[in-house]
Amino acid sequence: MNIDMIEAAAGRIKGHARRTPLLTSPFVDKIAGRRVFLKPEALQHTGSFKFRGAWSALSALDAEAVKAGVIAFSSGNHAQGVALAAREHGASAVIVMPADAPAMKIENTRALGAEVVLYDRTTEDRDEIGARLAAERGLTLIKPFDEPQVIAGQGTIGLEIVEQAAELGANARDVLVCCGGGGLTSGIALALEAKAPAMRARPVEPVGFDDVTRSLATGQIQRNAQLAGSICDAIITPQPGDLTFPIMNRLCGAGITVTDEDCLRAMAVAFARLKIVLEPGGAIALAAALYHGDKIEGEDVIAVASGGNVDAEVFQRALSQYGNDA
Amino acid sequence: MNIDMIEAAAGRIKGHARRTPLLTSPFVDKIAGRRVFLKPEALQHTGSFKFRGAWSALSALDAEAVKAGVIAFSSGNHAQGVALAAREHGASAVIVMPADAPAMKIENTRALGAEVVLYDRTTEDRDEIGARLAAERGLTLIKPFDEPQVIAGQGTIGLEIVEQAAELGANARDVLVCCGGGGLTSGIALALEAKAPAMRARPVEPVGFDDVTRSLATGQIQRNAQLAGSICDAIITPQPGDLTFPIMNRLCGAGITVTDEDCLRAMAVAFARLKIVLEPGGAIALAAALYHGDKIEGEDVIAVASGGNVDAEVFQRALSQYGNDA
Repeated sequence: MNIDMIEAAAGRIKGHARRTPLLTSPFVDKIAGRRVFLKPEALQHTGSFKFRGAWSALSALDAEAVKAGVIAFSSGNHAQGVALAAREHGASAVIVMPADAPAMKIENTRALGAEVVLYDRTTEDRDEIGARLAAERGLTLIKPFDEPQVIAGQGTIGLEIVEQAAELGANARDVLVCCGGGGLTSGIALALEAKAPAMRARPVEPVGFDDVTRSLATGQIQRNAQLAGSICDAIITPQPGDLTFPIMNRLCGAGITVTDEDCLRAMAVAFARLKIVLEPGGAIALAAALYHGDKIEGEDVIAVASGGNVDAEVFQRALSQYGNDA
Repeated sequence: MNIDMIEAAAGRIKGHARRTPLLTSPFVDKIAGRRVFLKPEALQHTGSFKFRGAWSALSALDAEAVKAGVIAFSSGNHAQGVALAAREHGASAVIVMPADAPAMKIENTRALGAEVVLYDRTTEDRDEIGARLAAERGLTLIKPFDEPQVIAGQGTIGLEIVEQAAELGANARDVLVCCGGGGLTSGIALALEAKAPAMRARPVEPVGFDDVTRSLATGQIQRNAQLAGSICDAIITPQPGDLTFPIMNRLCGAGITVTDEDCLRAMAVAFARLKIVLEPGGAIALAAALYHGDKIEGEDVIAVASGGNVDAEVFQRALSQYGNDA
């Protein structure tokens, strides 16, 4: 993994992924006590940054592999990113999803042209099903984060941040990143290392699901004790990846943990002040900027808003509870 | 009014107003039955396109006028646009607002540095108060739409649409525009005339508040019979402007009218599929694209989403009623 791979991914993505803006609001700055620059990947195709990694991976395949098609395991943002990127490459995509995934997510993935294969979480083995399908049809597996071309694709966000922060005169040390398996965080960290070494990535995680924060603190991969119980479902993973962790360990500042309630508050602020829709996990870096300023270094701060694929019910909860405080 | 004024405004605005992207979604296209390209001015500073006109007007003043300050009448988007543009020019701003305007809007306008002068709608004359303050302090009045530099500022959206539509390969005839007094519509119409004469602006208005649609149909300025009773409050004006109407009459296609319910549905679609927050009046052009395709000409269509300053309660209503259809 190096900056050349990220720059090559940026070249392949140009004109396909959306170059999201860097948003600001004087009202957000007031809450945070410093200027906040938000990179809203909720506005990316399929509503999250995952489209970038998926496009990067698809566009790095040779013609034969594209013709054979790809496969991914996901019930969420990665599924939709791979489905759309595959369709735009003329590749077939098989997405293996649990049968109890929300009907809406299954429907959306199918609507983007993917073949959805459902499995029973209690009786079937996802990896076995995937391995069998891949072998039978010669499909290429697109992993959600521990895959060099996926990390390179997510790193293109870091390149854009460096350019846009310079244009807007942002004087930031910390770039706060919503962190699950670490594909987004490690990609951005590599881009910053090469292009703006005065800045560094800071992973942000839900309280109780702080595997990356603890892994960075101890220098060794730590696992989450649980995998359910936060509304930040999009960024809950068992542990950092074998590829992503060494990058984060070398380059990132300490992790920051945020409560679910603060994510809901940040969603209400993003609604009222920036006019964007964020999912809880996609709002967690903004929440850190707003409510954990004491843990942040630098005059200004940059936060990535990784996605906006949230049910109407959860969004309404954020507005009911915090819509008038924002 | 001509294209040179719009291009000059674009030069002055560059680096100050945000260049909003042109958003698309395969799900939106499916509802509309054609490709839809949305220009989300809800993402503009202060949450609406009004910042552009305000900046254009402020930046066209001479140093003495800037020093003396500006005045505007508005309880809504124009107030916030003028307040922020004035602050960034180092000019004082007086905003005359009805005392019964929502507390939040008064607070926001003050937070952006403006002096808010409240008046009693039932006993006081807004214009008299404004004229007195302007005379006493030498303030320049920034009108909301019937003002050449304001029209020129809104027209910069048209320039961006032409460039972005070409980049994305949009093959559109109609550009649907949320229409109140016609500043946005006439500015865009002038930009299209000069830069993309195969495209034309189409004003979109709430059913029952279709002064522009009727004025265009008859070739003469028509008034609205009522000024309250639609949730699209931001785009309700008594009649088209003396400057804006002749431009619209010369250049625009026929108006389209949309129900409040369809605006709420469009807000839910923008939430679910584009991850942006729209106010009812700001969603009306998207609603026309989604639900009135039979009145639209061309293979693709472009719609402007003019603003996103909506209360949490109204937004929740859109999600409760239509959040699961979107």
